[in-house]
Amino acid sequence: MTFEIDARPVSSLSNPAVKRLAGLHLKKNREATGLFLVEGLRAVIEGVELGFTLEEVVFVDRLRDLPPGRRLAKLIAGTGARALEVTPEVLVKIARRDNPQTVIGAFRRREFTLADVRPEPGALWVVLEGIKDPGNLGTVLRTLDAVKGAGAILVGDTCDPWSVEAVRATMGSLFVNRIVRAPMAAFLDWRRGWTGTVVGTALTAAVDYRLVDYRPPLLLMMGNEQSGLPPQMVGACDRTVKIPMLGRADSLNLAVSTGIMLYEVVRCRQPLAES
Amino acid sequence: MTFEIDARPVSSLSNPAVKRLAGLHLKKNREATGLFLVEGLRAVIEGVELGFTLEEVVFVDRLRDLPPGRRLAKLIAGTGARALEVTPEVLVKIARRDNPQTVIGAFRRREFTLADVRPEPGALWVVLEGIKDPGNLGTVLRTLDAVKGAGAILVGDTCDPWSVEAVRATMGSLFVNRIVRAPMAAFLDWRRGWTGTVVGTALTAAVDYRLVDYRPPLLLMMGNEQSGLPPQMVGACDRTVKIPMLGRADSLNLAVSTGIMLYEVVRCRQPLAES
Repeated sequence: MTFEIDARPVSSLSNPAVKRLAGLHLKKNREATGLFLVEGLRAVIEGVELGFTLEEVVFVDRLRDLPPGRRLAKLIAGTGARALEVTPEVLVKIARRDNPQTVIGAFRRREFTLADVRPEPGALWVVLEGIKDPGNLGTVLRTLDAVKGAGAILVGDTCDPWSVEAVRATMGSLFVNRIVRAPMAAFLDWRRGWTGTVVGTALTAAVDYRLVDYRPPLLLMMGNEQSGLPPQMVGACDRTVKIPMLGRADSLNLAVSTGIMLYEVVRCRQPLAES
Repeated sequence: MTFEIDARPVSSLSNPAVKRLAGLHLKKNREATGLFLVEGLRAVIEGVELGFTLEEVVFVDRLRDLPPGRRLAKLIAGTGARALEVTPEVLVKIARRDNPQTVIGAFRRREFTLADVRPEPGALWVVLEGIKDPGNLGTVLRTLDAVKGAGAILVGDTCDPWSVEAVRATMGSLFVNRIVRAPMAAFLDWRRGWTGTVVGTALTAAVDYRLVDYRPPLLLMMGNEQSGLPPQMVGACDRTVKIPMLGRADSLNLAVSTGIMLYEVVRCRQPLAES
């Protein structure tokens, strides 16, 4: 089983496939094609294993004869993905950074709708509103995977989870979490039918986050990095909680505060006898 | 009280002060001068208020007549700092990013040594070994401030806390935490005299992080993003703990795991009656 490739690695930046992949750094191209870029052999293999459709994959030639490369070849054979061997310079161009990974894949994204979010036993969803930093968003998805969350609902003007920066920060966890995007009005309307719990964090909240029962099904709401949750979203919460600030800092990084909250939910879900 | 400035904003990139400040993006220049860059009016004011020496400050002209600008002027008058009004283009050059803040200051850094790290009651220090990402490092310092930690000991080949990226991620908390840098051998030698507790996180650890008593004085050790703590560092711990991974992800982002650990220490330090 081998890659179906041309004899020589592609060295031209005007190669149509190279241009197509490099173009996926732009949101408009991701929206138009439904594709997103995934860097790294391990992440690409994970995407294929988890049933995502790999449309194209580029790799540098030195990978071809290495065991992981052969594993990749075996995986993609039969998926219909087009494999393209490229020079390191072309890979740098597609990755848009120095020292890129040896493999970059273009996968078809998979999105869910609010109708897919159901208050099943144990379900834990994160609701993110107005998140601006793709690194934060990706890191939240990574943590959500680590606590076996169901997925993330991205409300309103939240950054694109399919951007290279966000995907990179997920470290492969983008394939695990279900992603729903919804305008705020649609979310608020849908939320009225949600029969589980809704807890949001707000620095103005009176209740310490350690005092609340987070028994799922649960929506955990987190707001914008600077301004937090807007009033309409706060109004949609059953409870709002705060993480105590004991020093001079008046807030935490969003990925950090979400991580602390998610592991607090885990604590409620899986209490330790000794704790 | 006014800025002592020339009549017209500096528009030349070859201005010596501009070159000096822009040069602080390079570690060798930071080491040679002992200076580091701080972006943003709020952070610069915080640095001055917390007693850091401001050597130079550049700002765009539109700030001059605004209340925060006047507050800054008042603060720096008498500090001996040289204030320079620059064009927005020059500020972009110094900040090395689009849409920079309106003010950038060059402060003299302040470092501590292992001799300053004492097992005082309540003392909580984070020990970071081999951290590669300045955003992670800065975010850890921000969380450390939020839990009123004493400071951070950066061991071995950890990235520079005085880089623009790290300082930016601290959101002003760099001024609050004491920073110690030490080679691993010196740290391990010093650690033998530390009479407080030492807890490290390791994915190979058997003990759930929720089962340990983190009563300070405490050193909390966190290792490199990919490889975690090396054996010598693990050997220097009284206890090693792990944060449970319940999904497919096999690790957390370093700033997230450190945040979860630091708030676990807070939980031990300030138990809630109801929890």
